[in-house]
Formats: sequence, C-alpha cells, structure tokens
Amino acid sequence: MNAPSGESAAPAPRPTHASLFKHQVRIYYADTDAGGVVYHANYLMFAERARLEAMREAGHPHADLIAEHDCLFMVRRVEVEYLRPARLDDMLTITTEFFGETAATVSARQTFVHADGTVCARLVVELVCVRASTGKPVKIPPRWRRS
Amino acid sequence: MNAPSGESAAPAPRPTHASLFKHQVRIYYADTDAGGVVYHANYLMFAERARLEAMREAGHPHADLIAEHDCLFMVRRVEVEYLRPARLDDMLTITTEFFGETAATVSARQTFVHADGTVCARLVVELVCVRASTGKPVKIPPRWRRS
Amino acid sequence: MNAPSGESAAPAPRPTHASLFKHQVRIYYADTDAGGVVYHANYLMFAERARLEAMREAGHPHADLIAEHDCLFMVRRVEVEYLRPARLDDMLTITTEFFGETAATVSARQTFVHADGTVCARLVVELVCVRASTGKPVKIPPRWRRS
Amino acid sequence: MNAPSGESAAPAPRPTHASLFKHQVRIYYADTDAGGVVYHANYLMFAERARLEAMREAGHPHADLIAEHDCLFMVRRVEVEYLRPARLDDMLTITTEFFGETAATVSARQTFVHADGTVCARLVVELVCVRASTGKPVKIPPRWRRS
Repeated sequence: MNAPSGESAAPAPRPTHASLFKHQVRIYYADTDAGGVVYHANYLMFAERARLEAMREAGHPHADLIAEHDCLFMVRRVEVEYLRPARLDDMLTITTEFFGETAATVSARQTFVHADGTVCARLVVELVCVRASTGKPVKIPPRWRRS
Repeated sequence: MNAPSGESAAPAPRPTHASLFKHQVRIYYADTDAGGVVYHANYLMFAERARLEAMREAGHPHADLIAEHDCLFMVRRVEVEYLRPARLDDMLTITTEFFGETAATVSARQTFVHADGTVCARLVVELVCVRASTGKPVKIPPRWRRS
Repeated sequence: MNAPSGESAAPAPRPTHASLFKHQVRIYYADTDAGGVVYHANYLMFAERARLEAMREAGHPHADLIAEHDCLFMVRRVEVEYLRPARLDDMLTITTEFFGETAATVSARQTFVHADGTVCARLVVELVCVRASTGKPVKIPPRWRRS
Repeated sequence: MNAPSGESAAPAPRPTHASLFKHQVRIYYADTDAGGVVYHANYLMFAERARLEAMREAGHPHADLIAEHDCLFMVRRVEVEYLRPARLDDMLTITTEFFGETAATVSARQTFVHADGTVCARLVVELVCVRASTGKPVKIPPRWRRS
C-alpha cells in the first residue's frame, strides 16, 4: 500500500536478522475469560496482529502479498508457553523477531512482556507461504524475503 | 448436502410459519469474560449457529446455498436484549423462528433460555441474501424461501 | 465519564454532551470470516474497545470503576445496522457519543467509518452499572456520571 | 479424571491410560477467517471444549473442580501442528488422551480428524491445576487424578 515498490531504482534497505519489531496491545473484556485472565487462545490472535504490523513497518504489508502475488502466510506450527497471566486493562508489549527462512517458510519468535518488564508469554510460530486460491506452498516473493 | 434438491418431481414439504427450531449450546471458558459471564458479543455467534442448524434441520443447509447458488445470508441488522447472564458450563436452549420474508431478506426471532426456563436473552436479526462474489442483494433461491 | 479526578482544587472543564470520542481499529485475519468480511459479532467487540478508550481519554478508566467501586458497565441492549462491510487490513474510525443517562444506565451511539468517509456500521448500546459481585444495578458513581 | 463418584461402595472401573475421548465440532462462520479456513487460534478453543467434555463424560466436570475445590486447570504450554485446513460446515472429530500426570500438572494429546479420516491438526497441551483465587499451582484433587 505504501511500500518501496518499483518506484525507485535503488533497492530498499532490508531489515537485518536481528531486527526486533515492537507492538502493543491493550487487554479488553473480549480478550479475557471467567478465570479473570486473558483466554489462552487469544495470544495467537495478538501474535498475528504483531506479525502483520511488523511486516507493515518493514514496508511490506501482508495485504500487498495477497493483492500482488495471490499469496498469504499460513500458520503451520505454533508453540506457546504461558508464564504470567495478563488481566483486563493491562498493556502488553509484543516483540517479534523473524528467523529460519527457507524457500517457502519463515519462523518468528514472539515475546509478550508486561508493563513492569516481566515476561507474560513466549511463542514460536512457523509460517508457510501458500497460493491463496489453492493453499499449496509457493516460494516467498522476493520483497517478503529476509535474505 | 442431503436435502430434497431438484431430483424429485414432488415438492418437499415446507415448514409452516410457526416452525420453531431448537438448538443447545454449552458455555465454555472461551465464551466468557472477566465479568464471569458470557461476553455479550458471543450471543450473536451462538445465534448464527442456531440459524445454520435450523436451516440444516429443515433440509436446506446454508452450505448448499453457497455451493449451488453462489449466495449467502448476511446480517443486515441485529438487536439483542440481555436479561439474565449465562455462566461457565451453563446449557442454553436457543429457539429460532423465521418471519417477515421479502424477495431478498428474511428475519429471525431468537430466544436464549436457561435450563430452569428463565429467559437469558432475546435477539431479532434481519438477513439479506447476497451474491457471494459481489456482495449485492439477490432474490432468495426458491428452496430457501419460506412461502 | 467526564468529571475531574480529585487531585486539583479547580474542577477540570467538563466535555459538553456533544463530546465525540474517536478510536481507530485495524482489521486482522482474526476479525474476518469465510465471507471475506469482518464477522458481524466482532463489531460489538470493537465498540467495547472504543467505549473503554473513550472513558480512559476522559480520565476515568473503566478499570478504576471496578477497583474503586466494585462496579462495572454491562450491556443491557444493543442494536447494530451493517451498511458497508469492512475487509482485511481496513482501518476503521469509530466515533462514540454517550447520551441518555439515568441513575444507573447510560447509552452510546457509535458509528464505524471507512477510510474514504463512507459509513460501515451504526450501533446503539444501552449500558447498566452493576455491582461486580452481585450483578445488581447500582447508581453510577459521580466521577463516571456525565451531568 | 477417571475416578468413580462416591455413590457406590465398590470403585467403578477406571479407564486405562489409553482412554480416548471423542468430541465433534461443526465449523461455523464465526470459526473461519478471510482465508476461507478455520482461524488457527480457534483450534485451541475447540480443544478446550473437547477436554471439558472428556472430563464431564468421565463423571468429573471441570465446573465441580471450581465449585468444590476452588481450583481450575490453566494452560501452561500448548503446541499445535496444522496439517489440512478445515472449512465452513465441516464436521471435525477431536480425540483427547490425557497423559504424563504429576502432582499439579497433566498433559493431553488431541487430534482433529476430518470426516474422511485425514488428520486436520494435532495438539499437545500441558495443564496446571491452580487455586482459582490466587493462581498458585496446587495438587490435583483426587477425583480428578488419573492414577
């Protein structure tokens, strides 16, 4: 939507491998359950938001991936460790670091941190780039590659 | 998937206007919020389940509407009144009654009832039949019409 | 929802009844359904976020209402009209205007607007202030009153 | 999660460790996303339903655990592998097998299977029994123990 597409001759700077993207989420009633804490499945939803915002910030929105290449990233595997529950009105900071890219897959390590710096949860996710119309794995288009 | 589609010459029996479909939902953690009760938006999700099961029971699954006619029912308007909250592990009975059909729209009155017979919530929804690919209103295909 | 906190001697200016709070939401995969648009129930979740941010902006977080008064606002009635669907990656602006306050209830009119200015959806909600521990209606504490 | 209730003098036969509980879920619009498939986080919600129904079937509802012991099972760790996406109107069968019990924790292996027998997703979850009021780990009460 606003990325360094073909408009300039020089290639846009690529984020280094160590790039850490930060995204904040506020906890509302919809996110909590009767245990008084954030429902465990909702961390996956927050993590998705953080990854999409990381792509947007890097200048390569996920929406362009669909519009220009008929591709999208699907979750193939996810692992979450819950350490200290979040509650109503908490503000969590999510750090996202992409790693382990192959032709069609890329992984991300994501950490949820409380306002006081303690770790709330840790997540590792493996994404596969698929053709939107068929669901078949395809090569990640160059602009979305990290190396 | 199993409905009296066009294969037989005789028309299938049509449910009368007074038809009441019943569907039960159990309340899980995912449905509740930190207030200890079912999150108010989730009643719309339960109501959708009850309407789709009502269509299936009447022999006209919503999935066939998409597959055979490239149509689907979208919610155009909804109104919910919350009377007595539901909690974790409660079993609610939802009654669904369709009414007020026009060429492209149909409405439903849905009531959520607790196990002890008290009313939990009341909902009125207006649905419009749209072309899946364009989102434009179209006539409700005959098999899904009520009259 | 507009009174000053007790920290200064002079009362802070009260917003007039026409106060409009604005809040933006981005649409992610979690918010959409197989129809390609935002699932209709999710507008209620976005509206909740917008109301809580409106209270926070006015200096009277909902979380304080629970902590200081053991009270919370529950939804008693909601009505939504869906006009133009929102899709993945859209940014919606929600305007929130509170009105019609009684001793224990207050209402809000909320409008969802697309980036191009067209109206996406309209919502009217009636909230009732209840004791968190009992669920019984109680008077809205002064700091959260509008008049 | 397999002990007899107190009604008979002789202990009821305990299911062996290989006990497999089955639970079915139907896919509705609310469960899907704009990719046309079940949103990945929703598998955790279905898995929770299947575990609670497994406990209920074994005669030891999770709700009793809260009411009688002020305890509940929280998710400490979860791992999901997505193999073949589920779509609107699909019916999935979830098998749940508990294993690896310690004083305060128990794990479950859960498999989501399509109507044609192919595997949709696999999940392993570690649960910890906590005091509802404090969130601190406590011993699993005898009736909910497996051995």
